[in-house]
Amino acid sequence: MSAGEESRVASGPRRAVPIEELRGILGPGRVLTSEADRLSYAYDASFGVYVPDCVVQPKSTEEVQAVVRTAARERIPLYPRGSGSCLSGGPLPVYGGIVVDLSKMDGKLEIYPDDLVAVVSPGVRTLDLQKAAERHGLFYPPDPSSSRISTIGGNIAENSGGPRGLKYGVTRDYVLGLEVVTADGRVFRTGGHTIKNVTGYDLTRLIVGSEGTLGIVTEAVLRLLPKPQARRTALAIFDDLVVAGKAISKILTSGILPGALEIIDQACLRAVEAFRPSGLPVDAEAVLLVEVDGHPAAVDDEIRQAAEICRQLGARSVEVAADESARDRLWFARRQISPAIARIKPTKISEDATVPRSRIPDMFAKLREIRNKYGVELVVFGHAGDGNLHPNILCDLRDREEMKRVEEAVAEIFRAALEMGGTLSGEHGIGTMKAPFLTWQLGEVGVEMTKRIKRAWDPNNIMNPGKIFPEPGKDRLVFTS
Amino acid sequence: MSAGEESRVASGPRRAVPIEELRGILGPGRVLTSEADRLSYAYDASFGVYVPDCVVQPKSTEEVQAVVRTAARERIPLYPRGSGSCLSGGPLPVYGGIVVDLSKMDGKLEIYPDDLVAVVSPGVRTLDLQKAAERHGLFYPPDPSSSRISTIGGNIAENSGGPRGLKYGVTRDYVLGLEVVTADGRVFRTGGHTIKNVTGYDLTRLIVGSEGTLGIVTEAVLRLLPKPQARRTALAIFDDLVVAGKAISKILTSGILPGALEIIDQACLRAVEAFRPSGLPVDAEAVLLVEVDGHPAAVDDEIRQAAEICRQLGARSVEVAADESARDRLWFARRQISPAIARIKPTKISEDATVPRSRIPDMFAKLREIRNKYGVELVVFGHAGDGNLHPNILCDLRDREEMKRVEEAVAEIFRAALEMGGTLSGEHGIGTMKAPFLTWQLGEVGVEMTKRIKRAWDPNNIMNPGKIFPEPGKDRLVFTS
Repeated sequence: MSAGEESRVASGPRRAVPIEELRGILGPGRVLTSEADRLSYAYDASFGVYVPDCVVQPKSTEEVQAVVRTAARERIPLYPRGSGSCLSGGPLPVYGGIVVDLSKMDGKLEIYPDDLVAVVSPGVRTLDLQKAAERHGLFYPPDPSSSRISTIGGNIAENSGGPRGLKYGVTRDYVLGLEVVTADGRVFRTGGHTIKNVTGYDLTRLIVGSEGTLGIVTEAVLRLLPKPQARRTALAIFDDLVVAGKAISKILTSGILPGALEIIDQACLRAVEAFRPSGLPVDAEAVLLVEVDGHPAAVDDEIRQAAEICRQLGARSVEVAADESARDRLWFARRQISPAIARIKPTKISEDATVPRSRIPDMFAKLREIRNKYGVELVVFGHAGDGNLHPNILCDLRDREEMKRVEEAVAEIFRAALEMGGTLSGEHGIGTMKAPFLTWQLGEVGVEMTKRIKRAWDPNNIMNPGKIFPEPGKDRLVFTS
Repeated sequence: MSAGEESRVASGPRRAVPIEELRGILGPGRVLTSEADRLSYAYDASFGVYVPDCVVQPKSTEEVQAVVRTAARERIPLYPRGSGSCLSGGPLPVYGGIVVDLSKMDGKLEIYPDDLVAVVSPGVRTLDLQKAAERHGLFYPPDPSSSRISTIGGNIAENSGGPRGLKYGVTRDYVLGLEVVTADGRVFRTGGHTIKNVTGYDLTRLIVGSEGTLGIVTEAVLRLLPKPQARRTALAIFDDLVVAGKAISKILTSGILPGALEIIDQACLRAVEAFRPSGLPVDAEAVLLVEVDGHPAAVDDEIRQAAEICRQLGARSVEVAADESARDRLWFARRQISPAIARIKPTKISEDATVPRSRIPDMFAKLREIRNKYGVELVVFGHAGDGNLHPNILCDLRDREEMKRVEEAVAEIFRAALEMGGTLSGEHGIGTMKAPFLTWQLGEVGVEMTKRIKRAWDPNNIMNPGKIFPEPGKDRLVFTS
């Protein structure tokens, strides 16, 4: 694509959406055109408000194909969407057109226990899949914090993660095959029902994380695992963040692969204690939450070893949960972080800059520096085991001067993550929010090779335009549309 | 690509390879042009003999770039190659041109224990990486049976597997990032040093398994795991193959995820016992080899449970290895299969058709039917845990009548695997051998979407032409070139 070509659909003369034709495809009840309906799809969990021309709610692959063929003929932008819990702006209808709400396409949730496989419609909620797998003694590991509302289709679009990434990987690692509707309304299948598959290019994983810019996923084949039989959890309090970082490394090089390894910084601790006290010391620099899962005998020994490592390195205190209710109590503080910090200021900006594990202490030091330099309210928690931190900035969207400083601080967080060999996004995606920075990470050649694929699969740029790729005139982060 | 376009490079007038220019880039010692040298690169471990015009042995990314730029200017085909242990014809120089031998580019093998990451040159041998990781208490799980000679670059090109796929996945699951030289000689990096990364399309995994048709990998960032502290192994003998299949399912739905779960059929047993007897009963229908790895207490209990499941379902006998030397004895028969069956007839055709795990008994029944229908010498072993079977046909390449039956039998094996929801290739790749059948699995739309990517990245089709994609006039399997 030449400069400006990405926004061709938007900048050219826009044709009217053929509402009656869409009603003919879906029936009138699943083509939403009222202002109230359109407004309710103008947002997601990130920033910016963009009102679509209409919203469609297909329930079958054939309906998705028919909608796409209509849009392709008229060159009208399409924005596939799950539950809208996306934090990077993935589903926002930034150039108007048709939002394709796939959350109603939830008819299939089949578990094949002997194959360790599930076949699901894109609108199935993550939690419902997790529960269905558990009923067969199986386990679907990806666990984004929005799992109660997020859909599998949305998880696939953004390659969602969660606390289990260290041991179990992310959504990508569980997608074995997909059914996909192309930008011209044809349909094809990728992958299959087997872990091993090297037939042609890995189109499955090309589509995972492509944020709806290459096609619309209408069915997914997902890998399941045997459910771990037991888990044990410990919470360790550290006076020194660098020591906490050493404990993480020591645990991982001792042959222990925790199911979760979370870190909470002092600012988060204070916010939680001010919100719903759980008895954590507000003068500690960091808290580590370690959870091991697997065979009962193994987890008992491993949690003992992990606790011993924390103690030997100088943790102020270490508590190992004796049972599930004690475990829930240890996780309580971690779960309160988001609501607790959301009370500090009206606007919460959640980033997911990710660094190589060994650089976590450096990244914490850098974040402290950024907090002071820009005078922003910055707190940090995250999935320490895989280097996926969540720096959160608390601010007020109405305060233009403050937002200017916030935008600069966020850009500097991205730069720092990349300088340390990390990535712009660990699990939220690029969407609209980070598109201006894509070239920083991929380089000119990497961006061009990515665009070649986009152009080859969607030559008229109707599939979720305005996402991932940097656009002319949009070269910096802004939190308002 | 329109029909026939894939072979444009081959069918058009071929330009002479500018040998002197290549010597200027690499020095005379690393540009091989003698007939003996060229002949030694005319083969791989599959079928067909194709003599290249010359062979180059670059040792740096810059040298690879310079070679590619020269070839791109002259539109001369390039064939990246590791050790040539490929079973699908991936590196064969089918249209002449330049073989790029990357096995000498082995300068970098760095382990970052705190990040659980390795950074390696493409020519590093798989076994050397495995050993280097072990010296840090770490573990690189992919373990193709050619690991003593295969290179990481070759493993990446073919997305190699091995017996650990069930628990640990395949090469794809361990590649975090790549340095890649494009078809026009530019260089870019994909991915990074972190497990979580959702910045732009997943170009890393697009390149893994693309068999050198999209670019040349010049460096890889690989994920390592903590090394499992213990392993236990059991061997179970079954009079009935269907019962063996049930044992596999029962083990996996009991919360046990074995590090290896291998199956050996009667014909393989007989071949092994005739070659180097290990005391296995030649009247048994199947032998299962189960290995669990992890925490010492867990593996003791899990191997006991797995053995108990086999006994309860009616295994004739079950032996649990008491120590490592007993383990080696149990693995002995499995390791002897390839040399044992290779003695039966001069030619051994190793397939890797893969089916959903629950269809293994059906696939065995179908293979028996195919053996009888075509009167071919067919034996089966493989990685039962992930459905990745290795039907092997023993034959004589000089017997044209027999080879005709063999070709039909192999095509029917592929059809059967696909009908059961499986895949043409689990771990060997498509290469030249299975290219005629690609459309059977991907469908017309899937093949076209794949070709769009190939064309977008390599418009002149110089990167390993003649692989993966079906070509006009080559619509069936042939074992001779």
